[in-house]
Order: sequence, then structure tokens, then C-alpha cells
Amino acid sequence: MILTVTLNTALDLTYGVPELVPHASHRVSDISERPGGKGLNVARVLSALGHETVVTGFAGGSTGAVLRELLADLPSRDAVPADSGPAADSSPVADAPAPVSLPAPAPITDALVTVAGNTRRTIAVVDRTTGDTTQLNEPGPLVSADEWSALLARYEELLTGADAVALCGSLPPGIHVGAYAELVRSARAAGVPVLLDTSGEPLRRGIAARPDLIKPNADELAQLTGSRDPLRATRDARRRGAHAVVASLGPDGMLAVTPDGVWQASPPAKVLGNPTGAGDSAVAGLLSGLVEGLGWPDRLRRAVALSTATVLSPTAGDFDRAAYEELLPRVGVEEHTTAA
Amino acid sequence: MILTVTLNTALDLTYGVPELVPHASHRVSDISERPGGKGLNVARVLSALGHETVVTGFAGGSTGAVLRELLADLPSRDAVPADSGPAADSSPVADAPAPVSLPAPAPITDALVTVAGNTRRTIAVVDRTTGDTTQLNEPGPLVSADEWSALLARYEELLTGADAVALCGSLPPGIHVGAYAELVRSARAAGVPVLLDTSGEPLRRGIAARPDLIKPNADELAQLTGSRDPLRATRDARRRGAHAVVASLGPDGMLAVTPDGVWQASPPAKVLGNPTGAGDSAVAGLLSGLVEGLGWPDRLRRAVALSTATVLSPTAGDFDRAAYEELLPRVGVEEHTTAA
Repeated sequence: MILTVTLNTALDLTYGVPELVPHASHRVSDISERPGGKGLNVARVLSALGHETVVTGFAGGSTGAVLRELLADLPSRDAVPADSGPAADSSPVADAPAPVSLPAPAPITDALVTVAGNTRRTIAVVDRTTGDTTQLNEPGPLVSADEWSALLARYEELLTGADAVALCGSLPPGIHVGAYAELVRSARAAGVPVLLDTSGEPLRRGIAARPDLIKPNADELAQLTGSRDPLRATRDARRRGAHAVVASLGPDGMLAVTPDGVWQASPPAKVLGNPTGAGDSAVAGLLSGLVEGLGWPDRLRRAVALSTATVLSPTAGDFDRAAYEELLPRVGVEEHTTAA
Repeated sequence: MILTVTLNTALDLTYGVPELVPHASHRVSDISERPGGKGLNVARVLSALGHETVVTGFAGGSTGAVLRELLADLPSRDAVPADSGPAADSSPVADAPAPVSLPAPAPITDALVTVAGNTRRTIAVVDRTTGDTTQLNEPGPLVSADEWSALLARYEELLTGADAVALCGSLPPGIHVGAYAELVRSARAAGVPVLLDTSGEPLRRGIAARPDLIKPNADELAQLTGSRDPLRATRDARRRGAHAVVASLGPDGMLAVTPDGVWQASPPAKVLGNPTGAGDSAVAGLLSGLVEGLGWPDRLRRAVALSTATVLSPTAGDFDRAAYEELLPRVGVEEHTTAA
């Protein structure tokens, strides 16, 4: 089982409007609602890859109740028949080698801790004329000291059955900035490989607790290290305490600085689409590869193929299965010969 | 008891953001949540004026449940001690004559009909730099034929105890365009004075059923009659079937064309503020005045003072009680000597 932790879960709403005009009144033409927060997105992709996943973190109030109802529906909603094969005609990737098949989706178990406050909503307002998205994110519920203690107890318990754990996203109000560092230390004490995907001060503190892996993007790396040079910044991040750093460089793919070497992985071609959730898909790719005992090149291939297939999906945060299967063998991975 | 009907109730969310930038990501700095839809706003003002009110219409799903919880809290949340007197220091209106005092708030009774669909949300995104508001309105739940029949039965039952009824706002999906005309006819058959406040085709059809009063604004009047001349358009609207028409002309006050004469009512001075809910406050002023047996000049005075005090309130849709009490005796009402 893979455990994902989402301290600031969200009910993600997407509002389509014909055109977003500031200071005007808009009739929302289409609405979708899904359980969100980075760790929940990671769990959805892990499930699609056939990995049983348990999600913990906080949920509360009426929005938390809706989130949990939607979460209960997830594996079946996202399911595709295992024998459906790749839908080559609908894929934008042509001339692909023989595709790989995805297994049947695995269950996602809800182990969220109930809090008194309301789970936050996030609203993505999509301008249907330009395709651009304007994002509005509520801050999240105020979490009490007792609720944080309940989360720590639940987490310790879940670690005993976990093959790996991902700590994902922002902190809700009331949670101390060293919270992720605390969770990293517990995972390491329990001998469970731990991936940390957050930003700012919680990332800085979390790295010092020596997680197995972090997956910053270029902005997060620059904020952490002060450098926009990918290799320099990634190496710097590693020196701060992370055993391995996989930097996601958007359309340029990923750069991995690890104890075993340095690799650069690139998608076969640049693609256009919505990058929402691409980073979460990459986390799922890296973590599933680790649990399956794959080497770094194969983990990176999977992470790049999944995030590219997420950009290509018409639904934000979902990945295009056919595109993933066709992209996977076509991701390029190069080893850097200089030392990490 | 005054009955208000809100077929498309809403959970009204207000999001404060430091500055709204299209296609950027925003952290919402402050959130407020209140039960909305025009008839619920009217009920809130009627309650503050001391009138017992019953609200019906549709509510459903998790958003409907939150709306009903907030509605249950309303009279006490909005309550001010009856002996608190006017807070003259905090009022922007100076040199006022002796103010009138508001009675203790009266209860609001929830007689909403439960539907399977989710009550819509509306989101007002307030740019805290400019004060401008960008509005996002969900369309509302699809209401079934059985749910509409249940509403009709509930409405007939409530009419027997009503002194007046207000039919307010837009129609949710699934409700036929002649729905308000049907509700107007039932009220007239039951001998209950009926005010209709809607727009477009539902207004056009509703007027033909001969409501006692309609309260269009300048845009709604122009859409109905094709004229932007206030007196001409208001008279035209009356000829279409409404017994009386009170046109709200924004900062210019109100124009009433009635069987008893034509009046123009004007606030003592132009005010700056947020006009959200000003029309609903005017409806509450007109309806409470009718039930109390006031003549047209006093009804109009109350309606203009309430809507001006709504524009002056820092909270959208609420009215500034001290400003109302001071404005009321200072609203000017002039009778037109030409025939209605």
C-alpha cells in the first residue's frame, strides 16, 4: 500500500464561463466538482497504475463531506476496462511503438481525519473563449492542536502498512511550519521511503529532515536555492538534505540528482494543454516506480510520460491513458557523466 | 405573515482577494457565506422591519443544507437590541430630523421544498484594491415535474395564512417560463396581494397574469417595453397587466405608476456604495408598507430609504439601520399631476 498525506485537502470546483470579464456578472455554463489537494490527485493516478492507496490528512464540514463522498466514488469513476487497450485513434501521439497496458484500477481508502472546520474550496474559472484559467483558492480550515495530534496518531498507525509515503501540498492555518519535517522523521524512523512535495518554508524545513525524495518545480527550486540554473539548483537542494531530488522542468522534462547518478528525462515532443496536476502525476510515477523496484531511468520515464499525458488530458488533473501508454517507451533518458 | 417565494435560492459566497488578475492564481483572503436568492434577501429585511416571514422555494443537496442552517440562524444573527437606538455617530447622513426606531426582528420560517439537485452557489469576488465585484452564478439544480408539483401544493397551503406574497428572482432549470404567471394567478384566486420581481420572459408572462405590483429596474423595464424613458416605460408596463408598477431608477429613486396616482420618490442625496440587494430591500419596503396599510407616498419613502441604506452598508445585501432611520423622514416624494 502507498500512503499519501494531504493536510489541506480541497473540494476542487471548475467553472466554465463563456468569457471572464473582471467586474461583470457571469452565468457559469458548466460545473465540475472533484476531490482535490495534491495527495488526493497523486492517489487517483496511483490507483490508475494499479497501486492500492490510502489517503490521510484533514477533512471537515459540509465541503469535507462532499469531498469524501466523491472520494468514495473514485476508483470506479476513473476505471477503464483492463482489456480495452489503447485508443490509438484518439491519441495525439502518432507512430508510437507497441504500447503497454495499464492494469485494473486499485482501491483508494479514505483514512482522512475529521476536523471541525470546513474543508476549503478551490475554484478554477475557465474562460471557454481563450481556454485560460483563473484560480481562486480558499485558505483552508483552522486546525487545532488536538486535531494535529489525531493526525499524527493516524499517520504512525498507517505507516506500519505502507511501502512508501507521499507528503503533499500546502499547510492549512494552525499547522506549524515544521509539520512536514516531523512527518518525514516519523517515516524515516519507521523505515518507509518518503517523498515530500511542498514549497516555501515547509519545504525548506522538511528537506532538513532528510526525505528520500523531493520533486520541486523550477520556481520552487529557485525560491529554495536562489538559483535558476537547473543542475546547480537541483544539486544545491540535494545538499540541503534530500537523498534524491527530481526537478520538474515543465516541457523540458525532469532532472534527477540521486546517489546513483544524474539523469535528464525528456518527452518525445513538446505538447500543448493544461498543466494542472502534471506535477502530481509525476509524483505518482516516481513513487510507484520506487515501490516496484524500478531503476531511476524507468521511474523517470514513467513520471515524464504521466505528466505529459496529464497535460494532454481534456480534464484538468486527469491523464490521457492512451497517450500515456504510447508515450512511455518514447521518453528519452540521458545520464550525465559528471558526478552528482 | 408575509410569504416570499425564491425558486432559485443560492448559497451566496463572497471572496475577498487582494486584486483580481485574470489567468492568475489567487489566495482568497476572506470568505463570507450567506443564504441568498432575492426572496431570502427580502425576508431578511422584512424580519428586520418586524414582519413575520415565511420563505418557500427549492433547496437541495449539500449546498441546500448549508443554506438552511444559515437561514435558521438568521433572525438572531441580524438582530439588534430594540432599545439600542440609532448609531448616529457611525452614520454618513448628517443633520437628520428625529429618527424613527426599528422594532425587534421577527422570525423567518423555513418552508422550502427539498429537491434532489444541489442548490446553486453564487460567488462575488471582491477586489480589495478597487472594491469592484466580479460575479459568478451557477445556474441552479434541475427541478423535476414532481418537485414543482410539491412546491405548488406547499404554496397553496401557505397562501391561506399570508397577508401578501413576493415572487422573486430567476427560474432554475426545469421550471417552465410561465411558472410565475401560475403563482400570480393562485395568489389572486386566494385574494392575497402579490408582488412579482423577476425579469425577461418570466416577467412578461407573469405580468399578463395581473400581479398587484411589479418592481422592475431600468434595464428590466427597457427589455420589457423597448423604452428607456422612465415614465413611458413604466406606464407601458402597467398597461400590460400589472395593477401598479414601481420602477427603481438607481440613484434617481423610484417612480410609481398606480391606480391612485403617479409618484416620484428620491433619496435626499446621492450615495456611493455597493448596490447589491438594494432592489430586494425596496421590495421589502413596498410589501411591508402595503401590509401595514400605508399610502403610496409612505411605502415609497420606506422603499427608497431602505434601498439607499442598503447601498451604504459595508456588507452587500444588508442595510445600515442607523442610516435607514435617519433617511426615512428625508426622502422626497412628489406626485405627478398628469393622469396615470
